[in-house]
Amino acid sequence: MQKPTLPKGTRDFGPEQMRKRLFIFDTIRQTFQRFAFQPLETPSMENLSTLMGKYGDEGDQLLFKILNSGDFAANLTELDVAQGSKKLTPKISEKGLRYDLTVPFARYVVMNRNALTMPFKRYQMQPVWRADRPQKGRYREFYQCDADVVGTDSLLCEAEIILMIHEVFQNLGIQDFTLKINNRKILAGIAEMIGAPGQEGPLSVAIDKLDKIGKEKVLDELRERGFSEASLVSIDELLALFSLQKLDPDNVLTILEDKLRKSEIGQLGIGELKETLELVQQYGFENARIDIDPTLARGLSYYTGAIFEVKANGVQIGSVSGGGRYDNLTSAFGMPGLSGVGISFGVDRIYDVMDELNLFPPNAGQGTQVLIVPFDAEARTVALPVLRQLRTADITAEMYPDITKVKKMLDYANAKQVPFVILIGSEEVQTGELSVKNMLTGEQHKISADKVVAFIVSACKA
Amino acid sequence: MQKPTLPKGTRDFGPEQMRKRLFIFDTIRQTFQRFAFQPLETPSMENLSTLMGKYGDEGDQLLFKILNSGDFAANLTELDVAQGSKKLTPKISEKGLRYDLTVPFARYVVMNRNALTMPFKRYQMQPVWRADRPQKGRYREFYQCDADVVGTDSLLCEAEIILMIHEVFQNLGIQDFTLKINNRKILAGIAEMIGAPGQEGPLSVAIDKLDKIGKEKVLDELRERGFSEASLVSIDELLALFSLQKLDPDNVLTILEDKLRKSEIGQLGIGELKETLELVQQYGFENARIDIDPTLARGLSYYTGAIFEVKANGVQIGSVSGGGRYDNLTSAFGMPGLSGVGISFGVDRIYDVMDELNLFPPNAGQGTQVLIVPFDAEARTVALPVLRQLRTADITAEMYPDITKVKKMLDYANAKQVPFVILIGSEEVQTGELSVKNMLTGEQHKISADKVVAFIVSACKA
Repeated sequence: MQKPTLPKGTRDFGPEQMRKRLFIFDTIRQTFQRFAFQPLETPSMENLSTLMGKYGDEGDQLLFKILNSGDFAANLTELDVAQGSKKLTPKISEKGLRYDLTVPFARYVVMNRNALTMPFKRYQMQPVWRADRPQKGRYREFYQCDADVVGTDSLLCEAEIILMIHEVFQNLGIQDFTLKINNRKILAGIAEMIGAPGQEGPLSVAIDKLDKIGKEKVLDELRERGFSEASLVSIDELLALFSLQKLDPDNVLTILEDKLRKSEIGQLGIGELKETLELVQQYGFENARIDIDPTLARGLSYYTGAIFEVKANGVQIGSVSGGGRYDNLTSAFGMPGLSGVGISFGVDRIYDVMDELNLFPPNAGQGTQVLIVPFDAEARTVALPVLRQLRTADITAEMYPDITKVKKMLDYANAKQVPFVILIGSEEVQTGELSVKNMLTGEQHKISADKVVAFIVSACKA
Repeated sequence: MQKPTLPKGTRDFGPEQMRKRLFIFDTIRQTFQRFAFQPLETPSMENLSTLMGKYGDEGDQLLFKILNSGDFAANLTELDVAQGSKKLTPKISEKGLRYDLTVPFARYVVMNRNALTMPFKRYQMQPVWRADRPQKGRYREFYQCDADVVGTDSLLCEAEIILMIHEVFQNLGIQDFTLKINNRKILAGIAEMIGAPGQEGPLSVAIDKLDKIGKEKVLDELRERGFSEASLVSIDELLALFSLQKLDPDNVLTILEDKLRKSEIGQLGIGELKETLELVQQYGFENARIDIDPTLARGLSYYTGAIFEVKANGVQIGSVSGGGRYDNLTSAFGMPGLSGVGISFGVDRIYDVMDELNLFPPNAGQGTQVLIVPFDAEARTVALPVLRQLRTADITAEMYPDITKVKKMLDYANAKQVPFVILIGSEEVQTGELSVKNMLTGEQHKISADKVVAFIVSACKA
């Protein structure tokens, strides 16, 4: 018999991991809900016609495709096979697994446009699948937690995203994070300033490599991408702009206002950023930590306004959260002009950060709080009502199911890191005084059956 | 542009549905946790070698199979195609979507056998996929919520499942349900009694059709299945036994004990049932409603001891929960002799029952509790701190993001069934007295900004 294995790039989440993951999911969900985002779930499968062409050629390749059910090969010809995988695929597969939560959300909005109350605020926490080469921190199945508002271009939405980011990371216990914010209009202003209007895309892709490849190679790349020598004359000034994020937000805005004074779109972007920060302050959130970073350009082809990115400090890992404003979410499905803004939290990376920095609260991974150990069948008659009362008091409690050696039952408690054990033998049955053992300290008390629940409740909450 | 659609047999769950579904998931999860079942999640994809052959031929057909990524057709020959879908599948697909939670659980237990503390209690709440023909109440993607204990044959586990079933349905508000219980050993005893030992499988399949096809056709089917005329002589007595479930449990047990007095295995089954019911009573659960039904035989090929089934009364829908004891969960993966018992709750059917009987608590589907309506930008400066305080008090609150006509904002509140609206205009900004409107009654109060949160909190809890 072959030993069973997992498909590569996938994972089981055992009890301790799951409890910690549930802590993360619950924390994010609570924040989304308090901010009045509404839950949505879409199917794991979408028609390939919904998914294809939305993520670029590479994305199309990384979609997991589902073989048509039934006799899918019935009408295949030799030619279909000879023409190779790409042409064969649509003949044998019409569905794929979702690649992100954004395209299914767009599809949902378009299909339900007449029933939805706009502005529509939704959150969605579901797995996505990508046929990527698995490597450390990159999986073929992973969760995304997205919140989006569509149907309004109010900057209040940007402000609320900044507030939600702070609330989520503070509630998770990740105090040390960097939230970077930018606006595509500022990038457009910079491109205008150097005489390359509309070229903010290639410009930011090249500048993004500065740390890795150095100034000369960045210049080479910009030349290759068609930037004129004239536009590169002031490259040092440009690079100075791009290192502004080290300054505090007010300074950055002052410098940008000066440098981009001739760019209308640039001023627009600066104005949006300013208003967003003002709204955050009016909410009463004084200690928001926001870095304005004019280089930030995640998924630029997609975003049209604000751009967000969050990194956890002290851990070598990519961004743990990101998002921005877009104007074209639903245009691929025939519904243009719907503006929206969203944020996505990466649960798997957040888990890795919290694990590495030891930030999970002690009880986040905890399972059973009390194990009842009956020495014999008679002891069970005393044990069962206690078990019931413990659960009624919302204590996670179990009774060892078999009548066996006490050592074996205590080993079970230790292996599961159960903090309290209630031992019930014939003496306990006679006297009604139960033995409660603290498995951490080894302390043992005799407590009457009618007081044991109150004792455990207060001990578990201590 | 083509209008986007959903793959057949799949569904979106919009906000109101999702909130109700989350109510069901949370209720089930809380019970599982209180009973010290531990969370587990397995990947959506499993190797086909893990899934194939576990659900019968029909099951193999109903598995959704995933096309290998990359150039999957590179080595295909004309012959591969000519031989048809069944032989072609393994050449182009090595993974499938999980069909239930049981096989992945068995695979997990075998892969982690050395690390797991036995007995191992786990729960799992995840979607499963079946390429079934979609019809009312049958979907291609649906959730299962399973709890299992493996590594013990203690009847305490059966008792706990009975208790969990009661707790879950009571907490959901489904008071009127029927829990049927049987034991394979009783069915085996009945087969022995009529001189067809070991034939409890075909016997119960045929008897199960009694209501639909009548006595004569049941007899025909039993003859076809090889039952001798001698074994069918006492068919009326047999059918009498099979209608016992109308009696109360003690009566049923007394009659069974008498009828099966010559069957050792039958007596064993009766003994197990008795002990299970005794444990439920010792827990202090007097009003357990349990019907002993000697015809109950769900998935008999699989179960070896107790068999459970729950139906909601007053709704035409199949069972909403079911399970039983098995001895061979992990033997397909080379780990024989592991006894376990489990229960599965069908969230989709439970939803339909609660919806039809109008059992969702009024707040289960509720979203935003308060909408703040600022008349102008200045009003926002008063509104934002109030918004913050409401959320800190765990109230789901939002502010209308755009400055627009008051009517439009109130329409939004009505469409989303928001119970309270706080209106802030220039008068409110000057006086500091905010207008709070109860959208149900139409009542409107003036309340000072520093008291409005306390007012809303108490109103929302009322």
